[in-house]
Amino acid sequence: MEYKFGTLKKGEKNLITDVKGVKVGHVTLSNGDIQTGVTAIIPHEGDLFHDKCPAASFVINGYGKSAGLMQINELGTIETPLILTNTLSVGTAFDACVRYMTGIYPGIGWNEGTVNPVILECNDGFLNDIRGLHVKTEHIFEALSAASDTFSQGAVGAGRGMTCYGLKGGIGSASRVFEIESADYTLGTLVMTNFGSTSDLMICGDHVGAKLTGKPEDAKGSCIMVIATDAPISTRQLQRVCRHAQSGLARTGGITENGSGEVVVAFSTANRMKMNEPVWNMTVLNDSKMSRIFRSVIECVEESIINSMLYAETVKGFGGHERRALQEILK
Amino acid sequence: MEYKFGTLKKGEKNLITDVKGVKVGHVTLSNGDIQTGVTAIIPHEGDLFHDKCPAASFVINGYGKSAGLMQINELGTIETPLILTNTLSVGTAFDACVRYMTGIYPGIGWNEGTVNPVILECNDGFLNDIRGLHVKTEHIFEALSAASDTFSQGAVGAGRGMTCYGLKGGIGSASRVFEIESADYTLGTLVMTNFGSTSDLMICGDHVGAKLTGKPEDAKGSCIMVIATDAPISTRQLQRVCRHAQSGLARTGGITENGSGEVVVAFSTANRMKMNEPVWNMTVLNDSKMSRIFRSVIECVEESIINSMLYAETVKGFGGHERRALQEILK
Amino acid sequence: MEYKFGTLKKGEKNLITDVKGVKVGHVTLSNGDIQTGVTAIIPHEGDLFHDKCPAASFVINGYGKSAGLMQINELGTIETPLILTNTLSVGTAFDACVRYMTGIYPGIGWNEGTVNPVILECNDGFLNDIRGLHVKTEHIFEALSAASDTFSQGAVGAGRGMTCYGLKGGIGSASRVFEIESADYTLGTLVMTNFGSTSDLMICGDHVGAKLTGKPEDAKGSCIMVIATDAPISTRQLQRVCRHAQSGLARTGGITENGSGEVVVAFSTANRMKMNEPVWNMTVLNDSKMSRIFRSVIECVEESIINSMLYAETVKGFGGHERRALQEILK
Amino acid sequence: MEYKFGTLKKGEKNLITDVKGVKVGHVTLSNGDIQTGVTAIIPHEGDLFHDKCPAASFVINGYGKSAGLMQINELGTIETPLILTNTLSVGTAFDACVRYMTGIYPGIGWNEGTVNPVILECNDGFLNDIRGLHVKTEHIFEALSAASDTFSQGAVGAGRGMTCYGLKGGIGSASRVFEIESADYTLGTLVMTNFGSTSDLMICGDHVGAKLTGKPEDAKGSCIMVIATDAPISTRQLQRVCRHAQSGLARTGGITENGSGEVVVAFSTANRMKMNEPVWNMTVLNDSKMSRIFRSVIECVEESIINSMLYAETVKGFGGHERRALQEILK
Repeated sequence: MEYKFGTLKKGEKNLITDVKGVKVGHVTLSNGDIQTGVTAIIPHEGDLFHDKCPAASFVINGYGKSAGLMQINELGTIETPLILTNTLSVGTAFDACVRYMTGIYPGIGWNEGTVNPVILECNDGFLNDIRGLHVKTEHIFEALSAASDTFSQGAVGAGRGMTCYGLKGGIGSASRVFEIESADYTLGTLVMTNFGSTSDLMICGDHVGAKLTGKPEDAKGSCIMVIATDAPISTRQLQRVCRHAQSGLARTGGITENGSGEVVVAFSTANRMKMNEPVWNMTVLNDSKMSRIFRSVIECVEESIINSMLYAETVKGFGGHERRALQEILK
Repeated sequence: MEYKFGTLKKGEKNLITDVKGVKVGHVTLSNGDIQTGVTAIIPHEGDLFHDKCPAASFVINGYGKSAGLMQINELGTIETPLILTNTLSVGTAFDACVRYMTGIYPGIGWNEGTVNPVILECNDGFLNDIRGLHVKTEHIFEALSAASDTFSQGAVGAGRGMTCYGLKGGIGSASRVFEIESADYTLGTLVMTNFGSTSDLMICGDHVGAKLTGKPEDAKGSCIMVIATDAPISTRQLQRVCRHAQSGLARTGGITENGSGEVVVAFSTANRMKMNEPVWNMTVLNDSKMSRIFRSVIECVEESIINSMLYAETVKGFGGHERRALQEILK
Repeated sequence: MEYKFGTLKKGEKNLITDVKGVKVGHVTLSNGDIQTGVTAIIPHEGDLFHDKCPAASFVINGYGKSAGLMQINELGTIETPLILTNTLSVGTAFDACVRYMTGIYPGIGWNEGTVNPVILECNDGFLNDIRGLHVKTEHIFEALSAASDTFSQGAVGAGRGMTCYGLKGGIGSASRVFEIESADYTLGTLVMTNFGSTSDLMICGDHVGAKLTGKPEDAKGSCIMVIATDAPISTRQLQRVCRHAQSGLARTGGITENGSGEVVVAFSTANRMKMNEPVWNMTVLNDSKMSRIFRSVIECVEESIINSMLYAETVKGFGGHERRALQEILK
Repeated sequence: MEYKFGTLKKGEKNLITDVKGVKVGHVTLSNGDIQTGVTAIIPHEGDLFHDKCPAASFVINGYGKSAGLMQINELGTIETPLILTNTLSVGTAFDACVRYMTGIYPGIGWNEGTVNPVILECNDGFLNDIRGLHVKTEHIFEALSAASDTFSQGAVGAGRGMTCYGLKGGIGSASRVFEIESADYTLGTLVMTNFGSTSDLMICGDHVGAKLTGKPEDAKGSCIMVIATDAPISTRQLQRVCRHAQSGLARTGGITENGSGEVVVAFSTANRMKMNEPVWNMTVLNDSKMSRIFRSVIECVEESIINSMLYAETVKGFGGHERRALQEILK
């Protein structure tokens, strides 16, 4: 079955990497009780540390352990890859990101300040032996090396052990292209889904979940939402963009439970805030031109969440726990 | 046609006033070019100024002129009625609320500090001669006098001139009752709707709007959402509650355009923070018990928005502008 | 005695109006029990509503009733004069600002959206019959008409009835000029002071207050701090600037009591965010060049607060209450 | 020379550990180019993970990499020790804290959710080979084991390599005891100082720094401020408490440069938010009783910063860099 999410035109690959320069790489660890991994997002092809791009974050529900948001909020920039992994491996990912960045940039910790790793996480402890801390430094490096302009969705990378609406979740993506003032722009999202009760699942307005189980339950979980665009918008405007992600999540039926760490990070590749330039010349859209961007965020987040499920295979993991693929259920 | 919003049980009247002690009153001004009004919400029956109840606010999209949120955020209390009206009448409503409160409480501005009016607004300039500033001090007093535990919905009170999804919006309400740890609680919402494009309207997952017009457009507007509950929750927890309102709005198809002032205020009637008690003994729920509250917010906001349209009549006003009733369209 | 606040060079007049285009006007009401007024700040000489300048706000302690901050935070602009008055007259000032703006701009409330008045306040109820609501619409218009590039300090305008460190407070101002990357910039502040216990007063490190009374007491009050600069900085950067005002206040000994509404608004006159331009070209400083701006804020706020006292005369008002001039005390 | 900071009475040891139950431990790494370490703060003697205490955080200037603040803000609790270390070792400290907590609590990552390490940091790259990542997992465990109700100040623990006002900074502490409504309370602070230009240093109003060098300069750095109290206050109130720390820092002359990560965390030991209790009974002070708490924060932060310098010895480290002790300079 083909679903149609919203009214805007999809990007070529319907992936966050339709935003030129964005790259995504996975490492998937799948071995019995170990069902976890790493997903790395590289925001642009330039010098990440010196030629930062505008960024913002927003916390819908802060039951989570993501790192790096404080500095994004203060300086309005992102200066590293974004690393997604399981909750208890945030420290390892932070340390690996420091090692990756200091390996490339000799000025970090020397004469160019320190570096702000952005680490995003969900708890995959149902399917994965999360207490075993199986993500190692080298896995982050491998995910970074694997980063490319095309990538898999579903039960892969950091999404390997995640559960969405009681079924198999993971990594999903989508993109939209649209015109503002005669210029073409692209916006894409990548989500890591780990939230919701089956009974709440809604796809394009269809109450799929209620038909499957009929009964509501209280669910835990989280959802990480990363937004990339080549539309020229400022950090203040990116913060506005972040606040629209919740509407996309809500369209899939999510109610953002107490235990859900729902975190949004957005960046724009259109401008650079260069460390070595004393003055920045920025071209940004008038806020009154932003409604199409807001709409694209909502459509992309909605579709990305459903894609994370549609692309996922059934996974059996820790303690014999299993999460079934949506595709199997829908058959 | 009967719609079913979510899974929780409705309150007796399906109104915010199902929360014991909450009262709502309208004044509707309808005369040719003048289509506006006032809606007053009285949070509880006790001494509003001395025995404040916990409150919180959240701004989804801050393109708006609401007053009083700063102090709610700082002190976590509400100490006046909430007044809803049109955007340009916020000053009049603030002044009237000051006069109302100083009239009752001789200590205000004397030996008990000042008072924090909470004024919430949307722009009804399409149907109403908003520049004429037709709301007067006495209208606020009349709305306060009219406050009762039952009230009308639709094109009434402050909602008289509002437009929702290109059709007639206004005031809507809903409530839910639910059990937490063997105790029964009620949560209710009252919304003032003034946002959205017809093509985006969704009712219980049904893309009603797309069938009506087929084309997406960029719309302006706002949505005020007031949440009341008798569940014992703190101001921090009420802030969490506020952040869930967006998910209810999103379920009706709203995309929160650039020009939308989307503001949420929540209060709990279960505890009092009494001015004259040096120490407060508060009983609050463990956050892990809050998911049912979150769910009820989403269901109530969704239903309240649709109710604001279902109860509204067609209104013709300023410059001959007209907004048609959803009920007429659905026939 | 001549005090020296910090190390940067003062502007020509040592007033906020050293920032080119900024104008300030007062109306002072002084008649027995009535000791209050209005101070208006016009941010620039251009079209305020269509050619908005970047702005930001920050709330140090939100026990206050200021209006207009929500939209400043969302859109990052200011589009009206800033009006300062007493707490209970915020409604009147809001209404007057609406009338002033709709009088000039026929599109407001018609086809150009509504308008966001910025009203800032302190409680002058000790010296002024604040419950009498003596500020009228015409007073706001008069303050706006009186706005000029020079203005009085002390017990004037909205500061007429204010109390600072138990002595006479009111309106104070200061400015600094400095060089960043070979360009000269000016930053100025205007404060309305209404906070603190005498025993806490510190001037340039001298514990003046402790010598006067010797005993600490708990005091109420508020402090409004407005910052203007011609340095090209974005709304995010202006928000950072706002957060430095507290350090200037702290240098005068202030401890920000529970009841203090301490609110900061900053704007930059260097860029315009024009309503009718679809794209904005903004030149802004690299954040790493901002430390001199931060320093100037702290020095200016410190000096402005002390100036509000040094310029103030003794005032006797409501119920025979009196606040003595610092100059008399220091003799 | 004996300095007197403020007017409130000091606690017995004038340390954060005057708050009953709070413990602090250091590990100091000092070996040529390696001048760094770890400081651990244990908030109370009970079951940290199940019987959480109320907590809040505030970011004065977010140029920093601290972890764990998002969840503190959402849930209003702290559930682990607080770990202070150098910036690039945040990942290691996060990972060690996970290992420490999962070692004690078998439910973490299993049936009791995950855990939120709170890691706070400054950049010691001037005196320490920060790029060498010399802090190891065992150092965090050792600091935790060393935690006691008395501890050293100055160039110790995480403060080993820090620089304050161009001189040797590090770890400082102070406490105050005061009465509210006939009950005695204690508040203490621990700071890690790494900010400021020598010329700005002020001690109790004395412009010590200006006399030493006479010239202002732009400085980098950070300041971590941890506040503990046994006064019964809620998370909202603790957030208010956090916002007062800046005033203490400002009294030492600090101007919060662009590159400064100035972060405040506060917790109260008076109430517990127990994971396994469905309802919490909390006794909290009326906000109107809090001014003495605010005053104690300011006095303690001011004194702690100066103590971090007064107790520090001269340290020579990375690349032969040296920071001199204030005590030597003052002689």
